[in-house]
Amino acid sequence: MAAAKLKGNMLIAQSGGPTMVINQSLIGAVEEARKHPQITGVLGARHGIQGILDADFVDLSRERQTTLEAVAATPSSALGSVRKKPTHEDCLRLFEIMQQYDVRYFFYIGGNDSAETAFIVNSEAQKAGYELRCFHIPKTIDNDLRENDHTPGFGSGARFVAMAFMGDNLDNRALPGVKINVVMGRHAGFLTASSALARQYPDDGPHLIYLPERPFHIEQFADDVRNVYRRYGRCVVAVSEGITDKDGTPIAAAYTTEVDSHGNVQLSGTGALGDLLANIIRQKTDIKRVRADTFGYLQRSFPGVVSPVDAREARQVGRLAVRYAVKGDLDGSIAIKRRRGKRYSIYYELVPLANVARETRHMPDNFINRKGNNVTAAFINYARPILGPLPRMARFHGYSVKKR
Amino acid sequence: MAAAKLKGNMLIAQSGGPTMVINQSLIGAVEEARKHPQITGVLGARHGIQGILDADFVDLSRERQTTLEAVAATPSSALGSVRKKPTHEDCLRLFEIMQQYDVRYFFYIGGNDSAETAFIVNSEAQKAGYELRCFHIPKTIDNDLRENDHTPGFGSGARFVAMAFMGDNLDNRALPGVKINVVMGRHAGFLTASSALARQYPDDGPHLIYLPERPFHIEQFADDVRNVYRRYGRCVVAVSEGITDKDGTPIAAAYTTEVDSHGNVQLSGTGALGDLLANIIRQKTDIKRVRADTFGYLQRSFPGVVSPVDAREARQVGRLAVRYAVKGDLDGSIAIKRRRGKRYSIYYELVPLANVARETRHMPDNFINRKGNNVTAAFINYARPILGPLPRMARFHGYSVKKR
Repeated sequence: MAAAKLKGNMLIAQSGGPTMVINQSLIGAVEEARKHPQITGVLGARHGIQGILDADFVDLSRERQTTLEAVAATPSSALGSVRKKPTHEDCLRLFEIMQQYDVRYFFYIGGNDSAETAFIVNSEAQKAGYELRCFHIPKTIDNDLRENDHTPGFGSGARFVAMAFMGDNLDNRALPGVKINVVMGRHAGFLTASSALARQYPDDGPHLIYLPERPFHIEQFADDVRNVYRRYGRCVVAVSEGITDKDGTPIAAAYTTEVDSHGNVQLSGTGALGDLLANIIRQKTDIKRVRADTFGYLQRSFPGVVSPVDAREARQVGRLAVRYAVKGDLDGSIAIKRRRGKRYSIYYELVPLANVARETRHMPDNFINRKGNNVTAAFINYARPILGPLPRMARFHGYSVKKR
Repeated sequence: MAAAKLKGNMLIAQSGGPTMVINQSLIGAVEEARKHPQITGVLGARHGIQGILDADFVDLSRERQTTLEAVAATPSSALGSVRKKPTHEDCLRLFEIMQQYDVRYFFYIGGNDSAETAFIVNSEAQKAGYELRCFHIPKTIDNDLRENDHTPGFGSGARFVAMAFMGDNLDNRALPGVKINVVMGRHAGFLTASSALARQYPDDGPHLIYLPERPFHIEQFADDVRNVYRRYGRCVVAVSEGITDKDGTPIAAAYTTEVDSHGNVQLSGTGALGDLLANIIRQKTDIKRVRADTFGYLQRSFPGVVSPVDAREARQVGRLAVRYAVKGDLDGSIAIKRRRGKRYSIYYELVPLANVARETRHMPDNFINRKGNNVTAAFINYARPILGPLPRMARFHGYSVKKR
């Protein structure tokens, strides 16, 4: 098959929000490329497609193995990132530049918006008659890519969230009150739900979990908190930044007007939602100590809490994208699928770009409890292997002392 | 000396904000107590002096060694904490209960407010003629206890802050803009200053550091950010929650009215200051992407980022307090002192309770740059050994590609 012999440079770039393991995928692709003689060189574009339009490239073929491994273990996008949806004119310019630099293999690491970009570039390349192997390599802490059981980046982000709640639950146990923590995840609640993996004792928080998949009712929220507080004398709450009211209006909407080029409203990088929810509890209950924290960008960039499973899988999707690309006239995205059964077992599949582009997936119903304020055991079982082994939070046995 | 033979139970409690290593000090004291026959049993009070007033005790003598070690490695106050300043009447009730439970050794782990409590209890015990060895064991992430070179809890909190800035700096490098991170520390800037240890490359953030030791000028702040942004195309800012204007009014003051029993204004557990500062930059510059995060309680409770030096020293101050207590008619606090010289070398000293109670210390002038928007090399040298070895954030060498 002639197409299999397509020879030229490979171009790789990163897009969208960084994760703790997005560089694993980048390095996986770079090291795999070295094994295939039809890939003549490896260019990295700085800041996604913006870097291609600016011909802002680095030569990744020449990087040393020790540097590659060190970058793989470093959080955030080593090539820089961007949020940009290419126009028809952008695409024509892209192919002009790709031709100048003899690019025939294109890899774009990112989430659903980045998959959409890859889909657009691929369609436009076909229309323009520019021969290009075009691949999307998945990443997103939100875990909301269709076709995937879970996505690289989620396990480590979820691990950060679970560990943050472990510590914060103990902080709340030491100085009791209501503590609200706002977690990332615009439309999908997976990351917020992962706070449940912090629980090790029956009275451990988070005691309540609010997800964007269920409408948020302020009165119900206040009732829930009051009930937990009555029972435990304290209450830890996990709230997704993306919670909406019954009409689908984000609870945080009053506080933001910023919209990115994919049409997404800016929700992170502000503490307004947490403060709003804390004020609701102050007004609607007589609980005195109410605090809110917004975990913010630490959830996708904090070094040193990477899930080993996540790191391994992130590396592998990068490798596989290149392996598929050199196989023949193929384009697509690498998806992670899971085998049914008690033991954690996954496999990878090549899926069409259109299947992961744009639209996202949500928490399935069986992961959310009936009241919509907690997760189920099914979710815990789903998430546990992806986060990796978590530290134990120890308590005293607590031998009682006879009253004198 | 008859006093040395004082026999009775030991009572220990934790107070104030938790830290990641406050349990190390607790366990250090408990294990040391076992070596001294004049300490007949070890009681832990739940939630500080409130637990004593309620006779809410646990018997720590009976806890297993494996449990003690596991609790030592767990963040937050295992016995629970409190913020409460005892009145004269409280103290009389305390001694009544102490007598009932045959308590002759009292250890209170906490910061300057807790040292004040220990000082009050000690003075009242003398007035009341209740024979009691009364010790304060230091902890505070704020690092603001007088007499101490640094305090247990600071190293690990500072390690979290430095690591958070490492990751966040890379996030900001990937998606450039202005990023403001609000760090704990009511009056002392040590924790905020520790963000400087995140820097590994010349262009790394935090590029600006604002401390409570210097007045905060809004116009100067906007100018500073504009200058950094012009130079690097991005800007990462570390701001203490406790920054004040030239009259000493907290910049965050407009947003809070909550005051604890020691008279401290509540600053943490809200994102308002970060959002205010982000809005200032949006209004006063034409920079589009401006975000703010408030690190919040994670700085004192996140598991898994403990500084080994900090853990060791926290254990040791607990042990030493007990060792001094059984020596004779002594009361006081254990202070960490540092020897001059290139190698990190410390020793411990017994200091009077009055010397660490109430008033706090601040960043010395030679730790802050002239403009008041950064730290000096002297601070970096001071803090580095206390945080322990930090992970390396790797970059590509970045071989350039010839323009075609």
